[in-house]
Amino acid sequence: MIRKLFLAPLLFSTVFSYSQTKDEVFIRRLADEILHNGQAYQNLRTLTKTIGARLAGSPQMYAAERWGYDLLKQSGSTRVYKQPVMVPHWVRGGKDECIALPAGGKKKPLQVIALGNSIGTKNVALTAAVVMVHNFEELEQRKNELRGKIVFYNYKFNASFIRTFEAYGDAVKYRSQGPSRAAKYGAIGVIVRSMSHSTDNEPHTGMLSYDSMFASIPAVAVGLKDADWLASEIGKHAQLKLSIKTNGHFLPDAEGHNIIAELKGSEKPDEYITIGGHLDSWDNGEGAHDDGAGITQTIEVLRALVALGYQPRHTIRFVLFANEENGARGGKQYATAAQSNREKHILAIESDAGGFTPRAFSFNCSDDQFEKAKGWLPLIGPYGCNEFIKGGGGTDIAPLKDQLGTPLCGFLPDSQRYFDLHHAASDIFENVNKRELELGAVNMAALVYLVDRYGF
Amino acid sequence: MIRKLFLAPLLFSTVFSYSQTKDEVFIRRLADEILHNGQAYQNLRTLTKTIGARLAGSPQMYAAERWGYDLLKQSGSTRVYKQPVMVPHWVRGGKDECIALPAGGKKKPLQVIALGNSIGTKNVALTAAVVMVHNFEELEQRKNELRGKIVFYNYKFNASFIRTFEAYGDAVKYRSQGPSRAAKYGAIGVIVRSMSHSTDNEPHTGMLSYDSMFASIPAVAVGLKDADWLASEIGKHAQLKLSIKTNGHFLPDAEGHNIIAELKGSEKPDEYITIGGHLDSWDNGEGAHDDGAGITQTIEVLRALVALGYQPRHTIRFVLFANEENGARGGKQYATAAQSNREKHILAIESDAGGFTPRAFSFNCSDDQFEKAKGWLPLIGPYGCNEFIKGGGGTDIAPLKDQLGTPLCGFLPDSQRYFDLHHAASDIFENVNKRELELGAVNMAALVYLVDRYGF
Repeated sequence: MIRKLFLAPLLFSTVFSYSQTKDEVFIRRLADEILHNGQAYQNLRTLTKTIGARLAGSPQMYAAERWGYDLLKQSGSTRVYKQPVMVPHWVRGGKDECIALPAGGKKKPLQVIALGNSIGTKNVALTAAVVMVHNFEELEQRKNELRGKIVFYNYKFNASFIRTFEAYGDAVKYRSQGPSRAAKYGAIGVIVRSMSHSTDNEPHTGMLSYDSMFASIPAVAVGLKDADWLASEIGKHAQLKLSIKTNGHFLPDAEGHNIIAELKGSEKPDEYITIGGHLDSWDNGEGAHDDGAGITQTIEVLRALVALGYQPRHTIRFVLFANEENGARGGKQYATAAQSNREKHILAIESDAGGFTPRAFSFNCSDDQFEKAKGWLPLIGPYGCNEFIKGGGGTDIAPLKDQLGTPLCGFLPDSQRYFDLHHAASDIFENVNKRELELGAVNMAALVYLVDRYGF
Repeated sequence: MIRKLFLAPLLFSTVFSYSQTKDEVFIRRLADEILHNGQAYQNLRTLTKTIGARLAGSPQMYAAERWGYDLLKQSGSTRVYKQPVMVPHWVRGGKDECIALPAGGKKKPLQVIALGNSIGTKNVALTAAVVMVHNFEELEQRKNELRGKIVFYNYKFNASFIRTFEAYGDAVKYRSQGPSRAAKYGAIGVIVRSMSHSTDNEPHTGMLSYDSMFASIPAVAVGLKDADWLASEIGKHAQLKLSIKTNGHFLPDAEGHNIIAELKGSEKPDEYITIGGHLDSWDNGEGAHDDGAGITQTIEVLRALVALGYQPRHTIRFVLFANEENGARGGKQYATAAQSNREKHILAIESDAGGFTPRAFSFNCSDDQFEKAKGWLPLIGPYGCNEFIKGGGGTDIAPLKDQLGTPLCGFLPDSQRYFDLHHAASDIFENVNKRELELGAVNMAALVYLVDRYGF
C-alpha cells in the first residue's frame, strides 16, 4: 500500500463567476449527507433482494412500483403520483436450453438465455446444423447456406474501445438485428455471442427487434466460454448441430406506471428539471446496476435535498421510469404527457450506466448550454465527474428531446465492469459497491442543485 | 442500459509540441497489445492462486521471487537479476482470537487479526477490562484509567474524504502509534477499529510501530461490524472484558531480494527510469490488489514494450520490490545500491494503490517537470489517467527521492474499493477486474514510453 498522501487536484482553470463559496459549501453538505447518512445502498438491497428482477408486466413490476411510490413519499416529496402506461408483457416461459450435438461427438449443454422479446420454440427442441459467421459481411457471403440452419453470430466485443459502451454500440447490432437478417435467408434460429468481455460464462440477454418483412425466429445468447468452445468445435465437426428449446412469448399488454415525485419550485414552478432511471429490469439477475443503481440514486438525491431543507427554484421531478428494457414505453409516455400539458423542461438527467465510480456527465444540448455546464466542473469535478462531454443522454429521457427539444444529460460512471454484468444473472446487489453508488448520487445531486440554482 | 453512445472527450487544451501522431499511434499500439494479448490477469491468477500470500521471510516470498525472476526473463528482458536485502521475518504464529466477556452477558468471539510486527500473548489468553476511546485526545483525558486495561480505539474511517487514501491517512495513526501511546499509560493490550469502510466484518491488518520508550503490547484490529457491536456493548456493560490470544513474533532476519529486470538504453544507458511495485504481501488474503496488481502491471509494461520491439533510449528498470509491508527494506536497498553505483535516475514510478480503473498520476517533482508531464495529458488521458496532480510517489521509491533526489510518480487508480480489501482476507484474485488491471498497465506503459522518449 501507498503511505504518502496527495492533495486534492486543482486542475481546472475555467473562470466562473458564480458564488463559489456558497455553492461549494452546499455541495459539500450534500456529499456529507449522502456519504454519512445515505440510504441508497440499503434501498438497493431491498429492491434487489426483496423484490428482485422486475420485467415489465411481471408481478415484481407492481411490487417495485409500490416500493418506489412509498419510498419517494418517505423521502420527503410534496407530491408523488403514478403515471399509467401500457407496457409489453413478455415472459420467458421456462428455462432456456441449447445442446450442441457434434457429429459423432459428445453432447454438450451450452449456457444460453433467450433474447428478450424473442419467440420461443414452444418448448419443443428446434434442431438444425449451425453456420458460424463473424459479422454481417460474412452472413451475406454465405447467404445461400443458411436455409434451415441455425446461425451463430460470433462477433467479439472489441477490447480496444476504452469506454466499453463503444464496444457495446459496435457489437449490439448482432443481437438486435441478427435474427431477422438471418431469417431473411431462411435460417430458423439464431445463437449470438453475448455482448460482454466478462471472464465468466454467463449469457447476457437483451432486446432483439424483429423486422416484420421476415419470419420471426427463436434467438438465444451464449456465454463467452461456450461461444469459444462452439467456435472451436465447428472447426472440427463441419456437421455440428444445435438443439434449442425456449418458450418466450407475449401476454397481453399490461398497465404499468412511471412513478413520479416532485419538489415544487418556489420561483418557477412551471419549469421542470427531470432526474431519473428505470425501475424495470431483465428477468435474470436482480437488475442491481441496471438500473437499481439509477433508481436508488434518484431517490437519494431527493432525500438529501429534503434532508438539507433545500427549497428549489424550479420544480424538480424524480422519475422511476417503466419498461426501459423491452419497450421504452415509460419514457415515451412521460414525454407525451409533458407535451400535452405544455410543460417547459429545462434539463433531463438520467442515470442508467451502472452504480460505478463517477467519471463524467454527457450533455446533449446547445454549445452555449455546454459552456455553462463546463463552468460547473470545478464544483463537481472533485466528487468524481471531472469530464463533461457532448452527446448522449439516456433511453428514458430521449423522447423529451425528440418531442419537446429538452436538453439531455447522462450520468457516466466508470464503464469497465458494466458489461461483465449487464443483462446477466450476475447483475446482483453483491456486485455493487456502496461508496461508488453513493458517489454517483453525490454527483447527480450536485448537478441538479446547480441547474436549479442557475438555470440551463 | 443506455443505448446512446458518446464520443471520446476532447477536453484538454494544453498546447504540446511533441510528434503527436507518432506518439498517439505508438500508445494506441501499446494499449491494443495489452488489451488484446495481455498476460497481467493470468499472471496475477498464478501469483495469487499458486503462491498466495507472501510475507517477507516466508517460504512464499521465495516462491514469488522465483516466479517473478522467471517471468521477467520470459517477458523479454535483456538482463534479470536478484538484489539481496535482509528482511524482517515476522510470523503470526497461529490464529488470532479475541473473545468479548460482558459481565453477566454471553461470550462473543470477535473477528480480529493481530497487527503486523506486533508481539503476541504467546498463545496465552490476555484478559482485561476494556476502555474505549475515539481518538488520542480522549486517550489523554482518560490516561489515569488505562493501567492494566485493554484500549479499544474506535476511530471511524471518515466517509467525507472523496479520495479514500485521505481517510486512511487520517485514521492510520491509531493503528501505527496507538499501541505505544496506550502502553505509555500502562495499558496491556490494544484493539483497534479496522482502517476501512467496508460493508463486511473482515479485520484489516497492517504494520504498527512500537515506541521503544514504552512497553511493547499485543495489538489486534477488529472488523467493523464487531467494532460497532463492541462499542454498543461497552455502553451497556461498564465492566466488559476482552480476552486476546495471539502469537505473533519475530524470527531472525532473512535474505530476501528485489527482483530487477532491465531494458538497456540505446542512447543513454546510464540514465534510468524505474517502474515497479512490491512483491511481498500480508499473510492473510492473497495480496491481489496489494500489490499483485502493481507487480503484474510492471511485468506487463515490459512484455508489451518488448512485444512491440521498442528500443528504449534510457535504461528502463522493472523492479519487484521486497518487503514493502512491514519494513520497506527493499526500497531502501534499491536506493542505497543506486547511490553507491552513482546511478542517475530520471524518474521512478510505482503502482501500489490497487488494480482499479486508472484515474491519475501524482508527481513529486519540480514545477518545470510537472509542466512537462502535463503536456502528456492529451496522450494519456484518453486511457483513464486524465488527472496529473502534484505530490505523492510510493513507499518503495521514496528512498530514491530521499537519497538521490529522484523525481517520483505514483499511479493512482480509482480508490473507492481499495480499503474494502486492503490488508484483509478479501484481497483476493476474484476481486480484481481484468479490464481495470490491464488499463492500469496501459497507462503506466504510456507514461514510461513518453518519459523515455522525451526525458524528464
